[in-house]
Amino acid sequence: VDKEELVRKLDEIVGKENVLSSDVDRESYSRDMGEFEGTPGVVARPGSEQEVERIVALADQHTIPILARGAGSSLTGAAVLKGAIMVDMRRMANVIHVDTINWHVRVQPGIALDDLNIELKKYGFFFPPDPASSYICTVGGAIAEGSGGLRCVKYGTMKDWVLSMRVVLPSGRVTTMGEPLAKNRAGYDLLHLMVGSEGTLGIITEAYLKIIPLPQNPDKRLLATFDSWDAVGNVIFDFKKAGIVPGLFEFIDKDHIRALNEKLGQNLEEAEATLIIDVEEAILTRTTDILRARGSTEVRVAKDQEEADTLYEVRANGLLAVKSLAPASMVEDVSVPLDRLGEFLRKVKLIASGNKLMIPVMGHAGDGNVHPIILYDNSDKDSSAAAAKAFEDVCRAAIELGGSISGEHGIGTQKVGLLREQLRSHDAEESLRLMKEIKRLFDPKGIMNPGKYVEAA
Amino acid sequence: VDKEELVRKLDEIVGKENVLSSDVDRESYSRDMGEFEGTPGVVARPGSEQEVERIVALADQHTIPILARGAGSSLTGAAVLKGAIMVDMRRMANVIHVDTINWHVRVQPGIALDDLNIELKKYGFFFPPDPASSYICTVGGAIAEGSGGLRCVKYGTMKDWVLSMRVVLPSGRVTTMGEPLAKNRAGYDLLHLMVGSEGTLGIITEAYLKIIPLPQNPDKRLLATFDSWDAVGNVIFDFKKAGIVPGLFEFIDKDHIRALNEKLGQNLEEAEATLIIDVEEAILTRTTDILRARGSTEVRVAKDQEEADTLYEVRANGLLAVKSLAPASMVEDVSVPLDRLGEFLRKVKLIASGNKLMIPVMGHAGDGNVHPIILYDNSDKDSSAAAAKAFEDVCRAAIELGGSISGEHGIGTQKVGLLREQLRSHDAEESLRLMKEIKRLFDPKGIMNPGKYVEAA
Repeated sequence: VDKEELVRKLDEIVGKENVLSSDVDRESYSRDMGEFEGTPGVVARPGSEQEVERIVALADQHTIPILARGAGSSLTGAAVLKGAIMVDMRRMANVIHVDTINWHVRVQPGIALDDLNIELKKYGFFFPPDPASSYICTVGGAIAEGSGGLRCVKYGTMKDWVLSMRVVLPSGRVTTMGEPLAKNRAGYDLLHLMVGSEGTLGIITEAYLKIIPLPQNPDKRLLATFDSWDAVGNVIFDFKKAGIVPGLFEFIDKDHIRALNEKLGQNLEEAEATLIIDVEEAILTRTTDILRARGSTEVRVAKDQEEADTLYEVRANGLLAVKSLAPASMVEDVSVPLDRLGEFLRKVKLIASGNKLMIPVMGHAGDGNVHPIILYDNSDKDSSAAAAKAFEDVCRAAIELGGSISGEHGIGTQKVGLLREQLRSHDAEESLRLMKEIKRLFDPKGIMNPGKYVEAA
Repeated sequence: VDKEELVRKLDEIVGKENVLSSDVDRESYSRDMGEFEGTPGVVARPGSEQEVERIVALADQHTIPILARGAGSSLTGAAVLKGAIMVDMRRMANVIHVDTINWHVRVQPGIALDDLNIELKKYGFFFPPDPASSYICTVGGAIAEGSGGLRCVKYGTMKDWVLSMRVVLPSGRVTTMGEPLAKNRAGYDLLHLMVGSEGTLGIITEAYLKIIPLPQNPDKRLLATFDSWDAVGNVIFDFKKAGIVPGLFEFIDKDHIRALNEKLGQNLEEAEATLIIDVEEAILTRTTDILRARGSTEVRVAKDQEEADTLYEVRANGLLAVKSLAPASMVEDVSVPLDRLGEFLRKVKLIASGNKLMIPVMGHAGDGNVHPIILYDNSDKDSSAAAAKAFEDVCRAAIELGGSISGEHGIGTQKVGLLREQLRSHDAEESLRLMKEIKRLFDPKGIMNPGKYVEAA
């Protein structure tokens, strides 16, 4: 089928106004937030499950690569595909039903997580998973990526919040996976196979997500600074031993604070390590006691919501400020056992000095998910090569410590070889073989987001 | 391979003393707790993963049916298999490591859940899922069955507590699935495919399970009685609206109480509906206020642990007492949306009267998981036929209301046809097709717990 014919057929399915085939339009779908590139052949914007079915059936019939996309906020190349039919799901953005008895919401995949939470707030409920891109990232994208976020330390990631979904399979056939029930044991768990499948097994057209009531008393937010990372490790140990589960437990290093002071004119203490922590008011004293006992040089408790927001922005803006220190950056996303976190951070320092690079670190202290930021100069071949090497070294350091090359961003095209390394190293080679066969089972023609992730590993 | 030869080869693998081939020994593995039958050809009791690998490789080589078994406390026929190599996992019962920093335990599959909790208690931790058979049921069995329990209403089921596992696949090859990490996005989620796979995809030889600290203040336990099931429905609504998450939220009907009074000489109020509820002390008053406002005829708060234990036994012994009212019984296990629970219970009453049977009901009110107990006379053909019909009618009523034919007991051989009905009715026929193909992918020779569950549906 030639492109003109394809566009005509898509016009029939979704209407002329919802098919984008100009160079400019296609260009706007050619990048994700990680700057991975691939210009689609044509973009279709379906308004219903039936339209998605027909688009996928068309791709199946003519063996054309196809990929669903929400906001394109993937950081790993999962949401771009050269020459593909790009299915922009954002017209399907309805909240179909908020159920305050069964504590679930039935929702279309194209709504942004923050918009979903605005709707849920009217009912006194919320949906906890909160990737940093929640202002744009869609429900469908977050499920497909198995996304995490800042509140994960308390509430878990997407996999813990999806009850059931409707999926258009690569064959164009549609099916339900899971049930919108608190308990269900009917059949193998295909639902969790879809969560984190990165658009390679099917297109999600609807989901039931668990929701919970908004907490009656908002957590207290505090900032604490330390002279050493060992102290931070000890705080984590003490929290865990005391059974303290923070609502938020972020860490950033001195590079981030310095960048904030220099680039954004802030006046923060340039401590080795800074923690931003949310805890319930009932355990605030116990929490600050631990922080002080472990040698915190400053413990600042936000007096009001405004100050709490300011502290949150230290973490959010820290990343932006750090990135502005170099022409280019790569954001890592590894996960390590909590008792190996200190050791891992020391290894990152060695990797930075060994490769003559600056690698500031930040991340989610409560669940061992670390984001080293590799800064480099992409106009300099040596610097680019050093960054690429450091990127792999950081992942390998995590693998060696029993960690994972991805805590929440996924694999995409970015970490395909490293995925294989991890699974081999952790004696999961047969699992990789099964994953590849599952991909072939779902998608025998190999049309859905091909050449990435498990298939390519 | 003839039986003598098979026994000789198994002797070589696990040692003579761990191969059971006499009629008496095989007979002792021929029933599960649901009275499903099937005498294995031989029983092997491995002591290590390597031995399990070799046993499975032997079964693969000679295409002999094989099945792992823990305590055999399945209620659905999942843990018996005629003529099979039965792999009794209970020699592999070590707690390998309790990690109080990462909050997980590395454990062998053959330990009983209660024994695991006795060990964890020494560290101030516990593992929440608590099937009624927790005094014997093993970690491996509970994972394979995706088991629930009484504390699920607060803590979820097995699927929410498994981090990673070692699995011997039907090919005899061993692999790791998942990672013992709070966050991991490396590859498709095979781990949850194994949870609830009922011994059809592989044999679990080790697992990392999440654990959490024992609560500092035990919940308060109370018993409340009501004149009508509508009142119970309203209590559930009010709890959900108030954001009350009980630690336990059980219901039993008048038949159970009557049986307790008659058979066990108790002196309980014969109310239409009795609830047994655990809540944190901080919300005890809010809870009892709701119960009274919804017309509870009695609200009794346990004064001490002894009384709390007595109230718990009302639920546990109620089932035994009710079963003793008839020569035979079938325990149902369906799950319905919470807002349809009242409607479902009315349907069960109609099914009982329509089939001239007594069907007492009990279950987990907080998550819509109901266990109607179908009482009948297995020496009477008409009564047996009526019970079989009622059994299917109850499941169909659940399916029609958007529920599931199993909340926690699974499918086994008991509900194979009903599984197909549910998936068809809920537009999941393609999912069933994929499940069957996944079974073929894992087990191309069809040797592992064959002829049951997904494969047979």
